[in-house]
Order: sequence, then structure tokens, then C-alpha cells
Amino acid sequence: MKRHLLSTADLSREDALLILDTAEQLAQVSGRSIKKLPTLRGRTVVNLFFEDSTRTRISFEAAAKRLSADVINFSAKGSSVSKGESLKDTALTLQAMGADAVVIRHGASGAPHRLAAWVDGSVVNAGDGTHEHPTQALLDAFTMRRRLGELDGRRVTIVGDVLHSRVARSNVHLLHTLGAEVTLVAPPTLLPVAMDDWPCEVSYDFDAVLPKTDVVMMLRVQHERMNASYFPSAREYSRRYGLDPERMGRMPDGAIVMHPGPMNRGMEIAAEVADGERSTIVEQVTNGVTVRMAVLYLLLSGSEPAIGGNQ
Amino acid sequence: MKRHLLSTADLSREDALLILDTAEQLAQVSGRSIKKLPTLRGRTVVNLFFEDSTRTRISFEAAAKRLSADVINFSAKGSSVSKGESLKDTALTLQAMGADAVVIRHGASGAPHRLAAWVDGSVVNAGDGTHEHPTQALLDAFTMRRRLGELDGRRVTIVGDVLHSRVARSNVHLLHTLGAEVTLVAPPTLLPVAMDDWPCEVSYDFDAVLPKTDVVMMLRVQHERMNASYFPSAREYSRRYGLDPERMGRMPDGAIVMHPGPMNRGMEIAAEVADGERSTIVEQVTNGVTVRMAVLYLLLSGSEPAIGGNQ
Amino acid sequence: MKRHLLSTADLSREDALLILDTAEQLAQVSGRSIKKLPTLRGRTVVNLFFEDSTRTRISFEAAAKRLSADVINFSAKGSSVSKGESLKDTALTLQAMGADAVVIRHGASGAPHRLAAWVDGSVVNAGDGTHEHPTQALLDAFTMRRRLGELDGRRVTIVGDVLHSRVARSNVHLLHTLGAEVTLVAPPTLLPVAMDDWPCEVSYDFDAVLPKTDVVMMLRVQHERMNASYFPSAREYSRRYGLDPERMGRMPDGAIVMHPGPMNRGMEIAAEVADGERSTIVEQVTNGVTVRMAVLYLLLSGSEPAIGGNQ
Repeated sequence: MKRHLLSTADLSREDALLILDTAEQLAQVSGRSIKKLPTLRGRTVVNLFFEDSTRTRISFEAAAKRLSADVINFSAKGSSVSKGESLKDTALTLQAMGADAVVIRHGASGAPHRLAAWVDGSVVNAGDGTHEHPTQALLDAFTMRRRLGELDGRRVTIVGDVLHSRVARSNVHLLHTLGAEVTLVAPPTLLPVAMDDWPCEVSYDFDAVLPKTDVVMMLRVQHERMNASYFPSAREYSRRYGLDPERMGRMPDGAIVMHPGPMNRGMEIAAEVADGERSTIVEQVTNGVTVRMAVLYLLLSGSEPAIGGNQ
Repeated sequence: MKRHLLSTADLSREDALLILDTAEQLAQVSGRSIKKLPTLRGRTVVNLFFEDSTRTRISFEAAAKRLSADVINFSAKGSSVSKGESLKDTALTLQAMGADAVVIRHGASGAPHRLAAWVDGSVVNAGDGTHEHPTQALLDAFTMRRRLGELDGRRVTIVGDVLHSRVARSNVHLLHTLGAEVTLVAPPTLLPVAMDDWPCEVSYDFDAVLPKTDVVMMLRVQHERMNASYFPSAREYSRRYGLDPERMGRMPDGAIVMHPGPMNRGMEIAAEVADGERSTIVEQVTNGVTVRMAVLYLLLSGSEPAIGGNQ
Repeated sequence: MKRHLLSTADLSREDALLILDTAEQLAQVSGRSIKKLPTLRGRTVVNLFFEDSTRTRISFEAAAKRLSADVINFSAKGSSVSKGESLKDTALTLQAMGADAVVIRHGASGAPHRLAAWVDGSVVNAGDGTHEHPTQALLDAFTMRRRLGELDGRRVTIVGDVLHSRVARSNVHLLHTLGAEVTLVAPPTLLPVAMDDWPCEVSYDFDAVLPKTDVVMMLRVQHERMNASYFPSAREYSRRYGLDPERMGRMPDGAIVMHPGPMNRGMEIAAEVADGERSTIVEQVTNGVTVRMAVLYLLLSGSEPAIGGNQ
């Protein structure tokens, strides 16, 4: 296992499976009502969030606290960062304060990689620009595996605004690594221009793909993009790329419906679908905490604490 | 004891006394310098605040931490909630993350009740619109009992902007349940139109009521309402409904003065009154932590932890 | 040791050395990988920040958590404080909630002193207006001592906007107490008008002072002041008062370069200087946590916990 978790594109199959297997063990322990593990007592996890993302922040916070780590939340808004301090100086500061892990969310693609070059501790990418969101892909894979078994040969369809989605990109790479076959369904204007390094298929016909899929993953529509020229109207989008009960009926028995949340009910997904039996949306949130526990555990438990490391 | 604490209107006398007696025991323990109780170790309490209320938030936070629970603060500002996520999806998210209790503050009356329908954990209402603020009423009752003994037959006068006050409503119901007699004193325009279900008297003559009261509870004036047509001028309000030392002189020996805070010194209460011997204002804050400890203890200590509940 | 840490001007040599020696012991313990000390278990430290200062807040938060204290963050923005609640009522509230220590950052000089008059717990000044920032001066002295040995007779030069700098003021007093000789270098318009009680020399010629200094401490330029009439242009400031590699060459062998952060690289300090071997900037951050641990330890460990103190 490497020291950081920056992307799924460079995550080996072995490491990915190690994370998923560790998460499975932690889920078993939690199932037996073990409330809190002492594993990371005395370690400090800093949530360094340059963008608001309460869900992701509290998921990491809950994961770290269940492992008995101390958590410090650092919202970059109104901080010296917003006064022009460089990311490097912020990194050196957190390092010097003894952060064992920094969980970073940043609007610029690549920021976590730069951070990792400057600190001795571990860096976990919690979403960087339109680039990657690796723990989201890991929790999705973990959820699929719990529902469907091993992922080799499974067919996964990812639907929506792929162009702006770090969730899509991270999932495509991880699912490919784990042996699944991924198909993207999106309006042509919402696909990346260059897809040479995307190991997946593309289709523009959602209904044609549905009967041959084990997993449908709906992406969130960003309302603020709805007026952009490359975006269909809300009505048109919902008609062609929304998942309603009728469309869900085309899926094979046992196929599941996923969404990273937060949802726009009635837009990309109908309420009946979101709350139905095939939906794994609530499990994904629960599994998010478990998978993040596994990641923090694997990155931190073997190493010496950072405290005093600079003395 | 029920699973949630949503209002005092539906709190039985038995449950109310159980909370007050438990708070008394916790106060005794604290008095002997026991710093921290391990009771809720491994449990997670989420403070879900849709309105700013630093005092209430840190009172709950302090209470939970003294019981060794983990606390996660979720300010709804700037979160996906503000991007249009439904309260239901927020509820399912917190539930799935393993929140054992959600302490909710919301601008809409009834929001905590809706939340309670969606989660398996406990919900504590920390103030919903103009509806209820049950832990405030419980800490007030606890404070009265410590100063005056049992509340049966005690006469309590609540003064000020009753119309917009969840504190008033929660107190009226709880005090009635505990056997006290409540009189409201307010300008007619600051009383609710329909008061059929308010078990209390109403008076417009503060000075006439004072000699027959054991407790005077002053409500906070919301400055932003001062320009509204139904509101007297600040000067007029203070003259007729403010508590100054002269007016306090009409109270019987042993009668006490309460205020939920934060105060407008010089408006609804004079500084000399607020800082005088009859004032319980500082005790109310201390008792707030103790009563909230009792509530969290009673709601959570008997149950299995929520962790893994969804697995 | 007094009950509060409000300024370095009234800190005795004995107490200052006690803090530095305690910090040294804590650094030794951290160096041996002791992750967390149980010293302050059950104590509550409140970070009461009326100004944003993420660095200082998380440094105190990390320090308190390593001593096993509970930490509650109270940002005054959007709280009842901003609705006009007096500092006194905020103080009484925190006191009543059982805060054992309040770490306060405030825009008004003297606010921590006023707070200290109202609470039984300890108050730590984390920066008040242009007045003092005592833990910054203590961490600076600790850093000098680790690099250079005892401070008696050491020559320290502080450079920049002294007028608006609480860091400068706190350092001048503490360094004088510890036997060092301090020289201030600044444009005449950026020095206080009355300096009778500043135990230090003043020079306007940076280059002349440099060969006779053991420590150069660069102050942060506040960009928002750059357009003020008393402030030189950025270019002029950098030319006369900035520290670049050429100027650093005038310093004696073994002399060190300090900066309280966050830096304006290229303005008051060149990047090569900030990242060079003489720079102690990263150590200062690490030492900040250690020194704040020492302060909290000395203020709190001997006393009874505040919990229940008001009962």
C-alpha cells in the first residue's frame, strides 16, 4: 500500500482489493456492535476543505473518530489561505503541526498530488476539481460487491454529466482495474473530448444499454450548469437520461441502482426509484464511512505517529 | 421514555420527572468533580443546525462530550442542503452514517417531527421555528426546582413576545404538566390568536401580577421585529414590560428572575436585575448542559449503538 | 504561575522559563513517539474566536487534544455575539457551561483582560487587536533557544510593520525579560508614536544592523494596509525591508531567520530565504503546538476541573 490515496487510476488491483477486504472486515466488526476501535488513538486527521462538502467531510470525520483519531476541521474559507497563502505553506503548516493524514478537497485538479509532494504524512484525495474522487469509487465498488459478489465481468453503466464528474472518472478506472465492463451514457456534449485513456465504452442510447447492465449509476446534475449551451434542457435531460420506474423495468432481475448523492429527485432519478428495493443509495452512505475507515486504517496504522516527527 | 424528545406538549409527567431526577443525579456527580462519564463512548451525536445558535450548539456539544460521545457538527449553511437537498435525504444520510442521535435546530416548525419519522436513531428538538424548544423548558424547570423545590402550585409569569417564542410555548406546556400555574404577560399583538390549547392565564398588567408570582421569566426581544407594526416602540416596551429594580421590588421574598439568554440588557431586563441575587441566568446555562446530558443519557444509554445498524 | 496568560509584558522571567522548560520536556516526550497524554482528560478548552485565524485556532486545538482535553470551537461570527450580546454575557455563558480554559482571539486590544475578570477558569490571549499575542512570542523564544541556546545577550532584530504588530510587541517584552537585546527596523511611519515602554533599540538601516544580529524576525505585511498613506509602495518596501539571499549574506554564521507566518513570499521574504537552512519557519509551527501544550498544561493541570463549579 502506498502512502497516499490520490487517484484510482494509479491504484493497483492488489491495493484496491486490500482496501475492499479491510472494509469488509470492519463492516463485520461494526455489525457485532463494536462501537469504537482504538487503532488510531493519538493520530491526527486534518480535513482540509477548500470547497464546501458537508457530506464528505462528516463521512471522513465519522470514520476517523470511530478509529479513535483526533480530527481537526480546516475550512479554507476565511483562513489565511484565502488571504493568498500558498498551498505549499498550508501544507508545511499542517505537517509541522503534526497532521498524520490530510484529507483534502480542492477545486483544482491535481492539488492533492502537489500536497503529497510536500508532506511526510498521508494525503487522501476527497475530490479535486473534475479529476478524481477515489474514496467515492471505492465505496461504490464495495457496495456493488456486497450486493452482487466479485466484480469481474460485471457490466456497469454510468449515466449523466460525465464531463464534469470526478465520480465517473474515478469509477471508470477502479471498475476497470477490478475487471468490470463500464459503459458511459451521456449527451455528446457532456463527454470529455479526449477519452483515449478511459477504459470503457460509450453509448447515447440509455434504453438499449439497460437490459445488458448489472449496475446503473446515475450522476448528479449540477443545476448551475443547466443554462450552459452544452447542456440539454431540464425536461429533455430528464426524458432521455433520467431513471424512472418504467425505464428501470428494462433492467435485468437483480440489477441495482446507484447514486453518489445528493440527488435531484425528479430530475436524474425518480423518487420511487431512489427509494425502491434496487436502490443502494442509503447503503452507499453507510459504506462510505466503512471504506474511509479502511483507507485511514491502512494508510496510518502501520506508521509511526507524525507527532514530533519534525523535532 | 420515548425514543425522541420533540416537544414538551407530549411529554408525560413521569418522563419529565425522570429527566429532571436524572439531571439532579448528574449534577451531584459533577459536584464531586467527576470530570467525564464513559456512558456514551462510541456513540455519535450530530448537531444538525439549519439556524445559527452557537449557545445551544455548544451546550449540546459539551453535554455529549462529557458523556464521552463523539460529536459531529453539521451546519446546514453552504452544505448540499442549501443546494436543494431534501430534509429526508439529509436524514437518511445521517442515519446511514451511523448517527445515534440528531440534535436539530430548524427554522420551520415541525421539522424535527418529520426527521424523527425517517431515522432509527433519536431526535432531539433544539428549537423549531416558533414551535418548541423542549430542552430549554426542561432546564428552566430544573432551575426552578433547585431554587424553589417541587413545582406543584408554583406561580410562573412569562413576559414578552410570546407570539414568536418557542421558549414560552415549551415552558407553558411543561410547567402545566408539572403542576405549576402559568400567567403570560404581553402586549395583545404579541400573543397568539388562538390559545385554546395553551393551559395558562393571560394578563396585560405586569405590575398587578408580580406580587403573586414565584418566578418571573423574561423573554428576549428580537430587535429585528422592533419595527413591525404589531410591536410597541422600544421605549414603550421597556417601560411596560421591562423588569427593572423598582418593578422587581413588587415580587415576593424568595421569588426568582429567569431569562433564556442572550439578554438585551436595558431593554427587557435591567443590568442590575440580570446580575442580582434573584437572577438564575447563569445557573440556567450551567443547568442547560446538565439537563442535556440527562436527555442524551436517557435516550441513548439503553439502546444498541447505531453503528452498523444498516449493514 | 498565574491563572491566565494575557501578555508577555507582565510575564515574570521565572514563569517564562517555566513555560519554555515545560515545552522542552513535552518535545522530548513527543520525540519518543508518545502519541497522546492523558493530563487534561475531562477538561474543556473553548476556542473563542472573534476574528478568523485558522492557523492559531488549529494549533491550540491540536495542543489541547494531545493533552486529551475536549475542545469546543466558538466562532463569534453569526452567533448571538454578533446580535449584540456583550462580551461579559458571552464570558458568563462559557463559564457556566464549564469551560476550564478560554482561548480568545479578538479585534479589540484588552478584550482578554476583560474576559479574565469575569471567569473563574483560565484565559489565554490568542491575539488581541494590535496589542499582544503571547504564545507567539513564547514559541519564538522556544525556537531561538533550541537553535541558539540560552537567550541572555542574544541580539534579535524585528523587521517590518511594528505599528500594527502584536507579534512584535509580545516579542519585545518577552525577549527583554529573557535577557536578549532587541532592535526594531521599520519605516518611521510604521513605528508606534510613543515607545517609552518598549525596552528595545530602533534603527532605520536594515543592512547596518544585520552583521550584528543572531536572529532576524520578519513581520508579515498586511496587504490591506499597502494603500495607506503611511505605507511605502510594495516595491519600495521590498527593496528596503525585504529579506533576500543577498541581504541574508550579511548575517553572521549561525544566525537564523524567523517569520510568524503566513508569509508573503517575494514581499517581505524571498522564497529562497524562507525555504533555506537558516529559516526556522516550519519549526516555529511545530513548536507552536508544543508551547501551547505547555501553557495549557501549566494553567490547567494543577486546578480542579471547572465542571460543576457553579453548582
